[in-house]
Amino acid sequence: MNGAQSLIRTLVDAGVDVCFSNPGTSEMHFVAALDSVPEMRGVLALAEGVVTGAADGYARIADKPAATLLHLGPGLGNGLANLHNARRANTPVVNVVGDHATYHKRYDAPLESDIEAVAGSLNGWVRRSESTADVGADAAAAVAASQDAPGRVATLVLPADVSWGDGGTPCAPVPPRTAKAVSETTVKSVAEVLRAGEPVALLLGGDACRESGLRAASRIAEATGAKPFIETFPGRLERGAGLPPIERLGYLAEQVAYQLEGTRHVIVAGTRSPVSFFAYPGKASDLVPEGAQVHTLADTDDDVVGALEDLAELVASGTEPVLAQPRRPELPRGELTPQNWVEVIGALLPERAIISDEANTSGVLLPAATAGAPRHDVLTLTGGAIGQGMPVATGAAIAAPDRPVVNLESDGSALYTIPALWTQARENLNVTTVILNNRAYAILRMELQRVGAEGSGPKAKSLLDLSPPELDFVKLAEGMGVPATRATTAEELAEQFSRALAEPGPHLIDAAIPPLL
Amino acid sequence: MNGAQSLIRTLVDAGVDVCFSNPGTSEMHFVAALDSVPEMRGVLALAEGVVTGAADGYARIADKPAATLLHLGPGLGNGLANLHNARRANTPVVNVVGDHATYHKRYDAPLESDIEAVAGSLNGWVRRSESTADVGADAAAAVAASQDAPGRVATLVLPADVSWGDGGTPCAPVPPRTAKAVSETTVKSVAEVLRAGEPVALLLGGDACRESGLRAASRIAEATGAKPFIETFPGRLERGAGLPPIERLGYLAEQVAYQLEGTRHVIVAGTRSPVSFFAYPGKASDLVPEGAQVHTLADTDDDVVGALEDLAELVASGTEPVLAQPRRPELPRGELTPQNWVEVIGALLPERAIISDEANTSGVLLPAATAGAPRHDVLTLTGGAIGQGMPVATGAAIAAPDRPVVNLESDGSALYTIPALWTQARENLNVTTVILNNRAYAILRMELQRVGAEGSGPKAKSLLDLSPPELDFVKLAEGMGVPATRATTAEELAEQFSRALAEPGPHLIDAAIPPLL
Repeated sequence: MNGAQSLIRTLVDAGVDVCFSNPGTSEMHFVAALDSVPEMRGVLALAEGVVTGAADGYARIADKPAATLLHLGPGLGNGLANLHNARRANTPVVNVVGDHATYHKRYDAPLESDIEAVAGSLNGWVRRSESTADVGADAAAAVAASQDAPGRVATLVLPADVSWGDGGTPCAPVPPRTAKAVSETTVKSVAEVLRAGEPVALLLGGDACRESGLRAASRIAEATGAKPFIETFPGRLERGAGLPPIERLGYLAEQVAYQLEGTRHVIVAGTRSPVSFFAYPGKASDLVPEGAQVHTLADTDDDVVGALEDLAELVASGTEPVLAQPRRPELPRGELTPQNWVEVIGALLPERAIISDEANTSGVLLPAATAGAPRHDVLTLTGGAIGQGMPVATGAAIAAPDRPVVNLESDGSALYTIPALWTQARENLNVTTVILNNRAYAILRMELQRVGAEGSGPKAKSLLDLSPPELDFVKLAEGMGVPATRATTAEELAEQFSRALAEPGPHLIDAAIPPLL
Repeated sequence: MNGAQSLIRTLVDAGVDVCFSNPGTSEMHFVAALDSVPEMRGVLALAEGVVTGAADGYARIADKPAATLLHLGPGLGNGLANLHNARRANTPVVNVVGDHATYHKRYDAPLESDIEAVAGSLNGWVRRSESTADVGADAAAAVAASQDAPGRVATLVLPADVSWGDGGTPCAPVPPRTAKAVSETTVKSVAEVLRAGEPVALLLGGDACRESGLRAASRIAEATGAKPFIETFPGRLERGAGLPPIERLGYLAEQVAYQLEGTRHVIVAGTRSPVSFFAYPGKASDLVPEGAQVHTLADTDDDVVGALEDLAELVASGTEPVLAQPRRPELPRGELTPQNWVEVIGALLPERAIISDEANTSGVLLPAATAGAPRHDVLTLTGGAIGQGMPVATGAAIAAPDRPVVNLESDGSALYTIPALWTQARENLNVTTVILNNRAYAILRMELQRVGAEGSGPKAKSLLDLSPPELDFVKLAEGMGVPATRATTAEELAEQFSRALAEPGPHLIDAAIPPLL
């Protein structure tokens, strides 16, 4: 058994049985070894940002990591932005980055690159397999490291000769570090804060954004009057009819200031206290209201659901959570607007949908329109590195082939990783992409004003415009094998969205939405 | 004057007057400042791999750097692969990477990232501007650093508050470190090698691949019997009728072994001694024939042209260089093949063309077919990080608006940076792209065999296939505003190529070329 075979066998034995791949020559033995471990599924993507984003989306839904296969430093670099997003989502990802043979590195061949420096920028786990005999153990360690609570990016560098060498030995799975239990003392002291009668905000992140955590938080809120919030960009948020409808903190500092106005205590559970996404001249970075105290119920590596349930037992015994009732908007009519397109989605969102949300400015009204839709998951842009939505949708569809995936995607964001469509077609994935095509980096138009940039004129404006030329997403999708249509009215969007959901395989709708601002 | 304005003014004063840009919020003051320095041209690209590759292509033709504008670590990461190629080409590039405001970094906001770690992987020059007053001097230092012989990637990290702060002061240009003169002793000792009567190979790289260096090398070869070669992947090679026709070293170790067979001395001038691109089991990494000696006439940071001319004076006084005569293939007929498409290019290549060559396996017969074509430049894939061809063509066309740019592009490689087409349409660039569409990562099919990977089967094969679904490059191009056609015969390719060259603006031809192997 060679190193590559022992690696793949170890991954599969640890439950990692999907590998999103964009290989090169140094990975050829890994590619060949796929045929000797039938349980491993290799999924080809034509750009590394798709590979890494798909691994992120897969794990957010599958609750276990996928592997990636990347080609030296440049391949890892191309995938870095979506690994940054995965890192911010605390998603477990196992990167396998091929490298030159150990003895070849000193020749500084053209692709020689500092893989560890690039991987190290992710603050995750990085190891280089030094010998074929070690590969199995290194792989098992990588899987465990990726799953150490709350989850992280683990990168295993695999030199070509270590991969092709004989003497590979598969390794049994290694248990990851589980989430730490929160002490009774901490829970009690937070309970005291809640009982003190002052205005409290309860900020939820990580696993607290899923059913058990949301139910406990809702009970706490009902019993104590605390106002619960979801962190601005949760990795995975369960919501819809039958689940507690908890508002997300806004993207803009001004929104958060409004949401937290009057708060005296911020209890954080599975996340950190709120900060501004960017700095703005003369505005605060820390969004905790002045004079308010921050109390940590659970850090991101703590058992946040257990802590919330313990807290609920203390302060909300006998209180039931408040659940969203089934309620959908009426199907709207007329030209598409930032207001009515979300109503189409809310009216037609299917049961058990997964939404990969990179709608950005076009999506600000989406949460209200889908609050009473059938229960669904929302995967958000956790790290701010745009180009996440299409790959994450791709990976989520691989993880849950029986669930409809809806990718709400801004035009500007789509272009970073548009080859994701090809993988969706290749794998016949049930992804319905709606491109919110406003022909601009609309968020940057807004930000240009918000940062107080003076003296901007036509050159600045031009750098934020996505036309001319106009992007034709119907052609782009068809060029990658995905059937596509164009919608300019709410009726068209509704008809096309329904049809796309009813048919198997991927579809794309190029929806002409004017900018919000 | 704010920091951004002083930065742009300093860049322009140092001759850097094009900025390939993909900005975000932290770069908004830079974007706004573009309107206050009219000499700076901002060119928008929709993905960072296009930004950095275009800067590489621009500088290879303009002989001076362009700036890039990138958004924190993820933006730099997306651009890293083409910066790797620029590094291997010794191309001067000035990256401006926006970062959070200095006081905002400690909040670890979602886009907080280790920019220095990522930039540092390029072994270039990295500096963070710490205050607005420093920005001008930092920018001047960055431009100089990028142009230090032989050229490198310089990265200036610009925190948002340093950019928007008042008190910016433009700085006068700083002279870069020029190429070192090669000592008379070295030239004389190399002359002795040439006179000894043993078989010599003279390997040329860097500036030696341009007219003056080629002429000197040709004279030396004529007078001494040394066999001259161009390095495998030169950043810019001048060739065609009227220039010395010097063969490039092959990509495959087997080719190089054949080319260097019997050589006793390898003289390297502006490059390094040849190494295998990848390692292969049981094969040598060092491609210098056994027993042959390596002599360095000029390192990459030496004045290689001066050294070659001095050497020619010693060993080839009175000898004229051998120049390629004008000679074109006949226009072929019939279904496209790996053999005949290059004849179409050779027959029709216009005067003063710039070829951005990412043809990979499809292009192995190209050099012979274009050797007697009108004088042209070839820009090759220097670092092996595919996805270079389209961006480099884009930047080259910005640098030389009066010259036709021909991008010979593999289907697989095209997908990494396909939004380059949008920038070509946006800027109405004279780029004619020929997609060599063989529906496979054909080079990897070959490499799978060459690395001796055993046990590969249908899963491995599938990871190297680009269909199904078939990529429709006509639709992809039209979707980005570039007129496109499909060619399946040599006659169609000839007709479409001629028409594309005759019309202004970008065009794409999707050429159905069967795999070579």
